Amino acid sequence: MAAPVAENVAAKIEELKVNGVATEEEDTDKVTPWEVTTTSATGIDYDKLIVKFGCGKLDEELIARFERVTGHKACPMMRRGMFFAHRNLQEILDRKEKGKPFYLYTGRGASSGSLHLGHLVPFIFTKWLQEVFDVPLIIQMTDDEKFLWKDMKVDDAKKMARENMKDIISVGFDPSKTFIFNDFDYMCPPFYENVVKIWKVVNTNQGRSIFGFTPEDCMGKAAFPAIEGAPCFASSFPHIFGKRNDIPCLIPCAIDQDPYFRMTRDAAHKLKAAKPCLIFSTFLPALQGAQTKMSASEPNTCIFLDDTPKQIKNKINKYAFSGGQQTVEEHRAKGGNCDVDISFQFLRFFLEDDQKLAEIREKYTKGEILSGELKAMATQEVQKIVGEMAERRKSVTDETVNEFTKIHDLVYKF
Amino acid sequence: MAAPVAENVAAKIEELKVNGVATEEEDTDKVTPWEVTTTSATGIDYDKLIVKFGCGKLDEELIARFERVTGHKACPMMRRGMFFAHRNLQEILDRKEKGKPFYLYTGRGASSGSLHLGHLVPFIFTKWLQEVFDVPLIIQMTDDEKFLWKDMKVDDAKKMARENMKDIISVGFDPSKTFIFNDFDYMCPPFYENVVKIWKVVNTNQGRSIFGFTPEDCMGKAAFPAIEGAPCFASSFPHIFGKRNDIPCLIPCAIDQDPYFRMTRDAAHKLKAAKPCLIFSTFLPALQGAQTKMSASEPNTCIFLDDTPKQIKNKINKYAFSGGQQTVEEHRAKGGNCDVDISFQFLRFFLEDDQKLAEIREKYTKGEILSGELKAMATQEVQKIVGEMAERRKSVTDETVNEFTKIHDLVYKF
Repeated sequence: MAAPVAENVAAKIEELKVNGVATEEEDTDKVTPWEVTTTSATGIDYDKLIVKFGCGKLDEELIARFERVTGHKACPMMRRGMFFAHRNLQEILDRKEKGKPFYLYTGRGASSGSLHLGHLVPFIFTKWLQEVFDVPLIIQMTDDEKFLWKDMKVDDAKKMARENMKDIISVGFDPSKTFIFNDFDYMCPPFYENVVKIWKVVNTNQGRSIFGFTPEDCMGKAAFPAIEGAPCFASSFPHIFGKRNDIPCLIPCAIDQDPYFRMTRDAAHKLKAAKPCLIFSTFLPALQGAQTKMSASEPNTCIFLDDTPKQIKNKINKYAFSGGQQTVEEHRAKGGNCDVDISFQFLRFFLEDDQKLAEIREKYTKGEILSGELKAMATQEVQKIVGEMAERRKSVTDETVNEFTKIHDLVYKF
Repeated sequence: MAAPVAENVAAKIEELKVNGVATEEEDTDKVTPWEVTTTSATGIDYDKLIVKFGCGKLDEELIARFERVTGHKACPMMRRGMFFAHRNLQEILDRKEKGKPFYLYTGRGASSGSLHLGHLVPFIFTKWLQEVFDVPLIIQMTDDEKFLWKDMKVDDAKKMARENMKDIISVGFDPSKTFIFNDFDYMCPPFYENVVKIWKVVNTNQGRSIFGFTPEDCMGKAAFPAIEGAPCFASSFPHIFGKRNDIPCLIPCAIDQDPYFRMTRDAAHKLKAAKPCLIFSTFLPALQGAQTKMSASEPNTCIFLDDTPKQIKNKINKYAFSGGQQTVEEHRAKGGNCDVDISFQFLRFFLEDDQKLAEIREKYTKGEILSGELKAMATQEVQKIVGEMAERRKSVTDETVNEFTKIHDLVYKF
C-alpha cells in the first residue's frame, strides 16, 4: 500500500525540481544511472533515497512474507539490507502464491575488460532469485548505450558485451532458463514495437526531468530509455512468451537504474501491459570508501573478476579504507568503526554466516580484531568468490555464449 | 558547385532562426514534413525554397547532362520543373558515367485508404528513374511514424502500410529490382545500427532546429528522423548490398522531406558513409487551388486512386479551382489564367505531349478554350492514369506484396 503514496511524493518532488522550486542543499547524495556519490563516509542515505525515488522499503515484514511464500530463507544480501527497496514486490509474491507466471529481467551496460565485484552483486542475487522462483531470466546488455555515451565503435561495444556475457554466465546461469542478448544484435520487430510504444507515451520534457538530458545531448541519449524499458514487456520476447503482455517481470538491479523503470511503469499503465516490479540493491562501495561505488573507469576502486588472489590481497591491503585507528594501541583502546570500514562492508555483502559476521562486528568495534586481521578476512571471502567465478569462467567459450544468445526455447511454457 | 554554397546559406538561415534573429514576415510559404501551405494562388515559391533549404536548382544545364549521361529524354515532370531541385545529382551522374553503383530510395508515410494522385507523383517519377538507371530501389513505409504522430494502433498502422504498398506496386515496380519494407516489420540489427549511429551525431537541439520539435513532443518524434535516415546507408540492407557503405542513394521525393536528408547528409559525413543525393518534386496542388497540396485528411482536396471515372469527373468539375472568368463572354474576351488553374496544373504533371500542352496553354490564355473544356481534358488525363493504376491494382494480392517485402536477392550484385 505504501508504494502509490510514495510514488506520488516522488512525482511531487520531480515536479518541484522541474519548476526549480525545490532546493537540494541538504541532499549531498547524487544517484543517477551515470553518477553515484555522497559526501558521507557511511555512504548513500538509502532511507532518504526511498522517499526521494518514491519506492517501497524492503522491510522485515515483506522479507518474512517472501520467506513464507517461497519457502526459502532470504539470502544474506536480502536480510542484511543490501537489497533494501522495491516496487510492487508484493505483486510478484501474490503471483507466486497463485502460481501465475512472471519472469526476471536484469541487465548490464557493457564495460571494457573484466567485470568487477560491484557488477557481480545483482547477478549473484539474480542467480539466487532464479533458484528460488524457477522462472525465465532475461539479461540485456546495453551495448548501444555504451556506444552512445562513450567514444567507441559499434563493433567494440558489441565485443565488450560478449566478453561481459562470459563473466555473467560464470555466475552459474542455465541456458535452458535464461536468454541473454545485446541490443545491437537482438533488435527485432517485436522489441522495436515496444520501444516505439514507450516513445509515444513519454515526452521529451519528461525525459529531461527524469534523466537530466540537455538539448546538447545527442538524439540517441533521449531515445535510449525506451530501449532499456522494452524488455519489461514480455511481448519483446515472442520466442519465450508468445504475444503475451500480461506477464510482469521482477527486476533485480542497483537503485541507480530506477529512473528507467519509473518511466517504464508509467508507460506500462498507458500500454495496458503488466508493470515491471523491482527489487533494488545498494552499491558495493569503492575500496577507498563508501562515498562512491566501485567504478571500472577508476581501476583502483575495484576488484576485478580477473584479479589474481595476490592482486586481491594487495588491493585490499593497500586501498581498502579502514575504520580502524591510527595505531594498534589506539585501536585496542577505542576500537574500529564497521560502518565506514570497507573490509567489513565486503563481509556484509559476501559472508554467508550471520553469527560469524555479528562476532566480527562486535570484536572489531571493541578493538579485539585489528584492521589487518579484518582485511585478511575480507580478502579470504573475496578471493573465494572471485576464485569460484574464475573456475567456472574457464569453461565458458564463445559457444557457451551462443547457447544463451541464440533465439531458443526455454523450459517454461506460456 | 552551387550546392555547397547554398548549403552554407541554409545553415546560416537555420542559425539565425535558432537565435531568433531572422524574421519570416515576408515568407508566407510554410513547407515542413507535416504542413505545406502558402497564401499565394500560384502556389509555393519554389525558387525561394531552393535558397531557404540550400539545395541546388535542377536547371536546364543539369537536365541536359542528365539526358546525355543516361541517353534518355527527361520525362515531362522533370523537363517542366515538377522536379525542380536536387542535392548532389551531379555525383549520381558521375557514377552512372563511370559505371559505379548507386541505388534509389524513396518512401511513404502510410495513410488510411487509397493513395491519392499527389502521393503518386514521386512513385511515377521513381518508376521512370529506375527504368533509366536500372539500379535497386528501396521503398520505406514509415508506419512507425504514423503511429507516433496519429491516434492509432500499431496493427492499424501496419495494415495501412500494407494496403498502401499495393497501390505503390501498381505503379509497375518489379520485385526482382525492388525491396519494399515497413519499419515495424523490417527493424533489424543492421538497420538499427545505422539508426544508433545517426542518433549519436545529431543532438536534440539540432533536431529541434531542423524539425521544430518541442519538449512537449513525445520521445518518439525526436527519435524518428534517424529511422527515415537509416535507409540512406546501403549497409541497412545487407541482403542487397552486403556490408558496403560506400554506395550512395538517390532519393526522389517531395521537397518537404528535405529536413530528414539534410540531417542525414551531415551524419553520413561523420559516419564516413556515402551521402544521399536527392531530387525534389513540387507538390501536386489541391483541387481547391495551389495554396495547399492534396491532403488525404481533407478528402475533397484529393483525387484518390480508387475513385471511379465518374467520381473523378465530378470532383474536377465541382472542386478544381478554375483560372477562367465568371462568364463565357468575359472568358472569351479576357482569357483564363493557367498559372492558378488546377486543371491546367494537372495537365502539366501528367500530359505527355509538350506541343499539345503548349497549345492548350495558349488557347486557354486567349479564351479560345473554356474552363469546362479544360476540365474535360484534365479529367480525361487523370482518368487515364488512375484507370491504368486500377487495372494493374487488380492483380496485386497479398502474395504480390510478400514478393516485394520478403528478404530477397535483387538481380543486382555488389
